[in-house]
Amino acid sequence: MDYATESLKKHYEWQGKIELVSRVPIETTDDLSLAYTPGVAQPCLEIKNDPTKSFQLTRRANLVAVVTDGTAVLGLGDIGPEAAMPVMEGKAVLFKELGGVDAVPLCIKSQSIDEIVNTVYLLSGSFGGINLEDISAPRCFEIERRLKECCDIPIFHDDQHGTAIVVLAAVINALRFTGRDMSNVAAVINGAGAAGIATARLLHNSGIGSLILCDSQGAIYKDRDNLNAEKRLMAEFTNRENRRGTLAEVISGADLFIGVSAADCVTQEMIRNMNKDPIILPMANPTPEIMPELAREAGAAVVGTGRSDFPNQINNASAFPGVFRGALDAFAADINEEMKLAAAHAIADFITDDALSENNIIPGPLNREVAASVAKAVYEAAFASGVSRLDIY
Amino acid sequence: MDYATESLKKHYEWQGKIELVSRVPIETTDDLSLAYTPGVAQPCLEIKNDPTKSFQLTRRANLVAVVTDGTAVLGLGDIGPEAAMPVMEGKAVLFKELGGVDAVPLCIKSQSIDEIVNTVYLLSGSFGGINLEDISAPRCFEIERRLKECCDIPIFHDDQHGTAIVVLAAVINALRFTGRDMSNVAAVINGAGAAGIATARLLHNSGIGSLILCDSQGAIYKDRDNLNAEKRLMAEFTNRENRRGTLAEVISGADLFIGVSAADCVTQEMIRNMNKDPIILPMANPTPEIMPELAREAGAAVVGTGRSDFPNQINNASAFPGVFRGALDAFAADINEEMKLAAAHAIADFITDDALSENNIIPGPLNREVAASVAKAVYEAAFASGVSRLDIY
Repeated sequence: MDYATESLKKHYEWQGKIELVSRVPIETTDDLSLAYTPGVAQPCLEIKNDPTKSFQLTRRANLVAVVTDGTAVLGLGDIGPEAAMPVMEGKAVLFKELGGVDAVPLCIKSQSIDEIVNTVYLLSGSFGGINLEDISAPRCFEIERRLKECCDIPIFHDDQHGTAIVVLAAVINALRFTGRDMSNVAAVINGAGAAGIATARLLHNSGIGSLILCDSQGAIYKDRDNLNAEKRLMAEFTNRENRRGTLAEVISGADLFIGVSAADCVTQEMIRNMNKDPIILPMANPTPEIMPELAREAGAAVVGTGRSDFPNQINNASAFPGVFRGALDAFAADINEEMKLAAAHAIADFITDDALSENNIIPGPLNREVAASVAKAVYEAAFASGVSRLDIY
Repeated sequence: MDYATESLKKHYEWQGKIELVSRVPIETTDDLSLAYTPGVAQPCLEIKNDPTKSFQLTRRANLVAVVTDGTAVLGLGDIGPEAAMPVMEGKAVLFKELGGVDAVPLCIKSQSIDEIVNTVYLLSGSFGGINLEDISAPRCFEIERRLKECCDIPIFHDDQHGTAIVVLAAVINALRFTGRDMSNVAAVINGAGAAGIATARLLHNSGIGSLILCDSQGAIYKDRDNLNAEKRLMAEFTNRENRRGTLAEVISGADLFIGVSAADCVTQEMIRNMNKDPIILPMANPTPEIMPELAREAGAAVVGTGRSDFPNQINNASAFPGVFRGALDAFAADINEEMKLAAAHAIADFITDDALSENNIIPGPLNREVAASVAKAVYEAAFASGVSRLDIY
């Protein structure tokens, strides 16, 4: 199928992929008096006296804003807020269909960090959580950090954490399949944007043996020039041997390659220089860092990409609907590392030992049971890590 | 029914009065590839090249934000953004049920005019229109004016214009019933907040004979002390004889009283001092300026209130769903005076000569046909007044 042409045609037909519907009857004047004036004054007063009641008396407990400024949409780059909307609506569809979450796309006409933070903060009383989306790095890091400080609802930048969760799930199962232990694995991540940084952090928190993060200049190491604040931070806990060099140089001897960078930047030779039976996850979209057949030919034991037309599609749709479902159900104040780790393990656990194979390390992104399983794990991790507020809400 | 108790109980059951649903199937990987990646890139690029396409390729053309800061909610005053949400959700229900409009409640955590204007402006690319709601006067006037200047979608403050439209509809039919001509009518409006100011303006634009606007200090006249900018403006084209005095003084000799003020501020004696067969519309909620039976006893020919338990309920639910339906369908750049006048006449015309009586000057607020009729009139008025952009959208 020619997805581009067909999708455009469908979008003209659909006239929007989401809509708002009423959950209450409005047929009689009594209906009106209960759902609206004069009766509605009573729930308003309850919330005025105790704002946490907004989670019970309105849709807030199930409502997430999907927020973007349109600066890093798919592989299209900075296309502006209006043009980002089809992606945000698609995201809202997945939120609802997979997680039962009501998601409202909000595309902000500004690229100012201050304005974006302030806009989201000012609206945060209307939502139960905020999903940041397609905001360019490194701005996305400061925006998320500042929103986590000022808002009392979960803030989750999906390009960072959704990706990190599904990558970790794929890594867990690829290690299971190849009989490796996380603590002995040498990993290289190419790409130090939103996805690369968050994946490095989550792999580090999963106890990976060693990890080198590369950007277009090669390995990130302490005291390298031209590092933004986030990369400087990564240099603190990755690349313990402080190796320098290009991707081709530092990939040598690694067990695991994760690509969240650009098309065709990995060669067969690089893969041949890795340890035996390497795990190759080239996830650049639409063209991976190396095509799966080339990676296999060069010796890769497992290959996973972002694409639906190859085995092992690594797609954040496996993560974000369940993550928010669990966080909302737990009235979590945050989506923390414990919850992300729990989500990754829940996704990985979905593949039984019998089913596990080189072509089946991760469940498909449309599997509703995955979302339910992730939700349960995240819900429990929220309690275990002390961020649930179910006692006060 | 004890609406307060019952409404609170229902709100706990409902857990929100609105929800978002998907309009597209997400069952297969092809579904995913069309509604989301990779296919969705194509509609994104179309909109990037021509942002007006966002009205065709996303839900924008049917999507309205219902925006409040929670400062003037019902008769409850400043109860804050979270506590305003039950009213905004109720509004969203009416938007959908009566007008087929998807309405997203957004409650802003700020009372700063600059912050509210900027927040709404920054989000205006995600919506086809903005319905401002329950924002206190006189801030509401500046907020609306500035938003109309900076946004290219219709901005409509319902407490002003929705109220003005339904009041004008009631007035038109009360005049029909009592055999008066608009140009000969002497009117007094008590209350110079959002509703009073906008109603005065719309009655003026309908050619009413004479009009005096009162606030809690009495008649508004040129050079009176303590007038805010909006009231000073009203003094320019109302109260042509520059009468001074209390409501009791200036109501004497009037044909029409409109109350958008406070409970029990009109006496039977005041009504007896009006012209014969006066029209009395005391709309303070929940307790009118004078109770209908007292007004009738004092000689009122027609009485209308905001309440559903008396005849002639004057409720903006008769106006806003149809107004936005028509404006959105016409891709109107604005909701202008012509469109408001058309809406009022459409509501009034709904009562046939045969049906017109002292107890039936306005159709009930839940009549779906009224919304459709208002939509048609507003749509046509948008064309006639040159604000439709159907040619470019």
